[in-house]
Amino acid sequence: MTFTLGVDLGGTKIAAGLVAPDGVVTRRMSAPTPAAEGPEAILQTIVDLATSLTASAPGAAIAGCGIGAAGVIDPVSRTVQFATNSLPGWTGTRLGAEIERRLGVPVATVNDVHAHAIGEAVHGAGRGERTVLVIAAGTGIGGALVIDGVLQAGRHGAAGHYGHVPAAEAAGLACTCGGVGHLEVIASGPAILQAYLRRGGSVPRDTQEIFAKADAGDSVAAEVIDVAATALGRSIGGLINSLDPDLVIVGGGLASAGPRWWNTVESQARAEAMGLLAGCRIVPTSLGADSAIVGAASLITSSTLLTPQSL
Amino acid sequence: MTFTLGVDLGGTKIAAGLVAPDGVVTRRMSAPTPAAEGPEAILQTIVDLATSLTASAPGAAIAGCGIGAAGVIDPVSRTVQFATNSLPGWTGTRLGAEIERRLGVPVATVNDVHAHAIGEAVHGAGRGERTVLVIAAGTGIGGALVIDGVLQAGRHGAAGHYGHVPAAEAAGLACTCGGVGHLEVIASGPAILQAYLRRGGSVPRDTQEIFAKADAGDSVAAEVIDVAATALGRSIGGLINSLDPDLVIVGGGLASAGPRWWNTVESQARAEAMGLLAGCRIVPTSLGADSAIVGAASLITSSTLLTPQSL
Repeated sequence: MTFTLGVDLGGTKIAAGLVAPDGVVTRRMSAPTPAAEGPEAILQTIVDLATSLTASAPGAAIAGCGIGAAGVIDPVSRTVQFATNSLPGWTGTRLGAEIERRLGVPVATVNDVHAHAIGEAVHGAGRGERTVLVIAAGTGIGGALVIDGVLQAGRHGAAGHYGHVPAAEAAGLACTCGGVGHLEVIASGPAILQAYLRRGGSVPRDTQEIFAKADAGDSVAAEVIDVAATALGRSIGGLINSLDPDLVIVGGGLASAGPRWWNTVESQARAEAMGLLAGCRIVPTSLGADSAIVGAASLITSSTLLTPQSL
Repeated sequence: MTFTLGVDLGGTKIAAGLVAPDGVVTRRMSAPTPAAEGPEAILQTIVDLATSLTASAPGAAIAGCGIGAAGVIDPVSRTVQFATNSLPGWTGTRLGAEIERRLGVPVATVNDVHAHAIGEAVHGAGRGERTVLVIAAGTGIGGALVIDGVLQAGRHGAAGHYGHVPAAEAAGLACTCGGVGHLEVIASGPAILQAYLRRGGSVPRDTQEIFAKADAGDSVAAEVIDVAATALGRSIGGLINSLDPDLVIVGGGLASAGPRWWNTVESQARAEAMGLLAGCRIVPTSLGADSAIVGAASLITSSTLLTPQSL
């Protein structure tokens, strides 16, 4: 049987999987991302995981390897156009060419959030739908627009930075991108933690603890979550008015934080959407942790998943 | 020679043109929109214009008629899904079927702003580009995303309502759509006039007079224009981060209001865009008043201008 390899390369973990022709991940392995050791160590980790997975399925043919990687990835040159400080030296890495040379199979590359979106839009919650908007809300706010199974990655492969739009709730706050007042600085996981600290809350371990505090009756915790979810929901409503999608899929760490966050995001998105569009379906992801592996691997098996522009 | 008819149906005027195979409008006629008389009078005016144009070119074959019409138009059923009070009774009109029956040639229908966007993206300033974002700023704020020559009209044909996204500058203001705090209520032409009145400015005839006052040194006029252009520019920057287009085309009445407005829109859009995208080209329209006629007519000559979803 012919399999594809899918790799999900994040700032802290590299997950890889052997994907069967039907899109199901049959084997998976992962390793910590050796971010501090630089790009060469990261490339080697990918090769090691791919080699181990291939060895674990003797006799299987490997059609190729799809990689969803942190950073802005140009799917044409398969090079990292831009990466934040979480991956020092990653910008400029010739990801596609290097892995292809070392593995000896065709390699396709895409941004990790885009890989996640392709997985969900084509094989997950969006299966069979035409215009699918995928939002990932966690450490950052991002996503992708997938139309008729084709990722709309834009000119530089940078489309889907939905966290970097003006949000009234973020007025005056400096964004990680250098801008001011962007959605991401009020609605992301770290933003919720920062907002709680700004309001004088006792120092929490992480964003999850703020959700636990809110459930235990901490009104400041409840309020910062409400503001974050409201800002995201309103922005999603604006995207519904802008794109008129068949379906909005919301994933990322915050999407599994429970009904307090989800219900506010969904109701605010609906309130913001124009009459005709207020019934737009808004659903959670369905592939769990496998979405980016499946999406990346499907770049190998379907040539229509990227726009002609992207390829 | 075979021509197509293009119709641009707005709230106050119906413009129609005879379009040659190269996309050039060879003859044009127009008539006031009989809005108060209802849908039947509007349909008859379209038929009258089309008949007159056809009669003016004896011997010409008419391949079909493309109509860009005010309201949310479903390109599949060719029916008006929704229209505001500016066209009473327009909602529900079977625009495509009725005109096709009366003219006896194939008819394609699309929203008027979408027709404008197709014209500019395919035959105008966006010619040869791949991901083109068109913004029309005038009585309302709208536009369309055209990718590889294909209008991305969305599920209901309602995509491109870029004026109905949250804008910090519009916080608390009621929008025409029923929402609150949308870009359109601070950045459209009527919004500029309303803002000037809220600030206690003497009653102006129209938005143009506020631009004249600003040029003559009226600081309140200058300020309300600045706020409007800033809000629009920031939203365009957010759309650049969301869509990573090759080109942004800005048209509509406000786009020809002079450098005060244009320069603020452009600089704010760039300031909002992430580093990699800050160089995105932002240009004015190039087809002038013909864009919607050309765009609508081209629906007949190219079957790829609408998405499979739309057709």
